[in-house]
Amino acid sequence: MSATTTYTVSGMSCGHCVATVTEELFKLDGVVSVAVDLESGRVTVESGRPLDGEAVAAAVDGAGYTVTT
Amino acid sequence: MSATTTYTVSGMSCGHCVATVTEELFKLDGVVSVAVDLESGRVTVESGRPLDGEAVAAAVDGAGYTVTT
Repeated sequence: MSATTTYTVSGMSCGHCVATVTEELFKLDGVVSVAVDLESGRVTVESGRPLDGEAVAAAVDGAGYTVTT
Repeated sequence: MSATTTYTVSGMSCGHCVATVTEELFKLDGVVSVAVDLESGRVTVESGRPLDGEAVAAAVDGAGYTVTT
């Protein structure tokens, strides 16, 4: 079962931030696509199976940013 | 006038590749969001104004990958 979930991430200010968050999210097992809108901070993650929200938050946190919703 | 265009990029094999391409695309003036699907190589770029296709190809090429369509 695939899943697509959108998160809001705070703290991203440029393309490098986006790239860092994208790279961390792709490290999560099952992630097949990541879409980031820099202005809104919206990050949409598509995965082959539902992701653990805490794992996503930890990945973003590890990159130096914060999932706010 | 905003624009959303999807390209196919060859050579991306992991999240690091995706992050590198994403970062290069965000350097183009006007880019507001980038979405990458690793398996298909499909890259969707949204920008505040239409992008020059050659500039997009050059950015991807500079990252070490190739726009095939």
